[in-house]
Amino acid sequence: MATTDRNRRLLLAERPSGMVNADTVRLVEEDVPDHGPDGALVRVRYLSIDPTIRTWMNDARGYVPPIAIGEVVRGGGIGEVVATTSARYAVGDLVFGMTGWQDYAVINAAAGAMQVIPPGIDPLAALSVFGVTGMTAYFGLLDVGKVAEGDTVVVSGAAGATGSVVGQLAKIKGAATVVGLAGTDEKCAWLVEDLGFDAAVNYRTQNVATSLREQCPGGIDVYFDNVGGDILDICLGQLAQKGRIVLCGAISTYNDSGPVKGPGNYRNLIVVRGRMEGFLIFDYFDRFPEAQMAMASWVAEGRIKHSEHVVEGLEQAPAALNLLFTGGNTGKVIVAVE
Amino acid sequence: MATTDRNRRLLLAERPSGMVNADTVRLVEEDVPDHGPDGALVRVRYLSIDPTIRTWMNDARGYVPPIAIGEVVRGGGIGEVVATTSARYAVGDLVFGMTGWQDYAVINAAAGAMQVIPPGIDPLAALSVFGVTGMTAYFGLLDVGKVAEGDTVVVSGAAGATGSVVGQLAKIKGAATVVGLAGTDEKCAWLVEDLGFDAAVNYRTQNVATSLREQCPGGIDVYFDNVGGDILDICLGQLAQKGRIVLCGAISTYNDSGPVKGPGNYRNLIVVRGRMEGFLIFDYFDRFPEAQMAMASWVAEGRIKHSEHVVEGLEQAPAALNLLFTGGNTGKVIVAVE
Repeated sequence: MATTDRNRRLLLAERPSGMVNADTVRLVEEDVPDHGPDGALVRVRYLSIDPTIRTWMNDARGYVPPIAIGEVVRGGGIGEVVATTSARYAVGDLVFGMTGWQDYAVINAAAGAMQVIPPGIDPLAALSVFGVTGMTAYFGLLDVGKVAEGDTVVVSGAAGATGSVVGQLAKIKGAATVVGLAGTDEKCAWLVEDLGFDAAVNYRTQNVATSLREQCPGGIDVYFDNVGGDILDICLGQLAQKGRIVLCGAISTYNDSGPVKGPGNYRNLIVVRGRMEGFLIFDYFDRFPEAQMAMASWVAEGRIKHSEHVVEGLEQAPAALNLLFTGGNTGKVIVAVE
Repeated sequence: MATTDRNRRLLLAERPSGMVNADTVRLVEEDVPDHGPDGALVRVRYLSIDPTIRTWMNDARGYVPPIAIGEVVRGGGIGEVVATTSARYAVGDLVFGMTGWQDYAVINAAAGAMQVIPPGIDPLAALSVFGVTGMTAYFGLLDVGKVAEGDTVVVSGAAGATGSVVGQLAKIKGAATVVGLAGTDEKCAWLVEDLGFDAAVNYRTQNVATSLREQCPGGIDVYFDNVGGDILDICLGQLAQKGRIVLCGAISTYNDSGPVKGPGNYRNLIVVRGRMEGFLIFDYFDRFPEAQMAMASWVAEGRIKHSEHVVEGLEQAPAALNLLFTGGNTGKVIVAVE
């Protein structure tokens, strides 16, 4: 692979209001950084484009501090070690970590470590089904949602990187009915025909409340929420006895400014003795190996399929991020840096 | 005690919009009912006035069917067995059950059983601290809220029958800080001076968000919600890592018609990995004895105090119900039927 002698970096230029646009980031070229003693230099190859990056651009309290103005946009990625002074990293190693939106990242005491990806793992799969999005599906559905045999499971953002894995995992775990919500008929067809969902609802053209009542006549045991907004409210209203809502994301609200509309049907949690719970995948890092091994065998058996939507060029990263909010992607959005 | 030869009954005349009023119930006098073979006739003495009765008056999906128009208003109460053809009940027994708002209730195969109250138990305490409201505090805080030593606990409706017990239980269980929300300075003083709450906030005169930030600088570990509305939203926004919200009631919304405003800060459940869970005390019936024994010893030791607000006269039951929504009560609201 080619390397540049300059480090292109996308810095946060201003906090976006709504979708990111041409003014949100600023491209600068800097010298390739020095990794110093006991470190490594990483040529970034692929960026993991995740909805949470949009939340880090806001000046709001979160689970990590906001990205500062003038700071490189924060995000996960995969790169190749091109220089090293550390015994832990060899030139040629593929590594995963918080690379940021740039050509070069460093590993050292100040910048932190990265995870070496075992040889033979497809880097795209490492960012999707074996990466944070796949792990989010696994621990969210199993550990928070406590999916059980015979359950009726609904997932929103179902054609996304996490949602598509959630539905397939639910079937593997014996869910009786798995319904996905997506925004195009093509995505809905993909969910049912390729991924084995029992049904899919196009939330842009169908009445979600009516469709879910038809598909889930006994109510919803687990709702895996990637979107928030009206769909969360509808699912709260249709929750079954002892139903669980896994709060993974609220993508429908991330571009909003001002107060977020809350789900008025939350009171149904009392009626059905239900539970709504949030989680962050960072709490599960030490359990990734167990999940990755399980996922690897299901992928090998063809029981879990994954899809990546690759966008070419570092400078396309902001547009790639917007795909998550316009629904322009199917599966995991990844930027191929060069 | 005197008995009447007629059975005064308060029937639901029309579904209220907002608070109940003179048109909501209709007083009728009927013959004293026949309890038949293997049954008992109960002279109702005390009615337990609970917020949930208001929700049963709406024509809305709930955990039990609505009260039908023309049906006696449903509610718990305590009465005295005055005639019996059943070996399980003796004349003079005090019994607890769903008596309804009337002078006489029957126990038989069709109407269901009632629980005999052991001799020596004060009937007012049986309806409050040892009754459904006390049990609600116990299982809600311990089983759903999983209160732990060192926790910061906030309870709304703190001067009510359930809330006042919640705060005292939290202190018994080692909570470091217990803050109650109530609607008058007198109630706030009672919580702190008599019941041992660490602090109280008058939500009518103080800024709740600011006050809670001052009292709970490390965030809220357990919020026991009796009221819903803005206070729930504020507490969601101030939840500590792994915080729990126990959804017990939503008294601020029970008189509303039309859509309920949801808590926009629900997304903070993701940030703090929090949980919001509803429960119904009916699921805990088989565990009442363990809780009642524990409560009895704490009451005997003076570690749990209880207060009853007794309203005289069956015909005052609708006004007594409104006290719960205007905040006119301190402790458990009970109607002395005669």
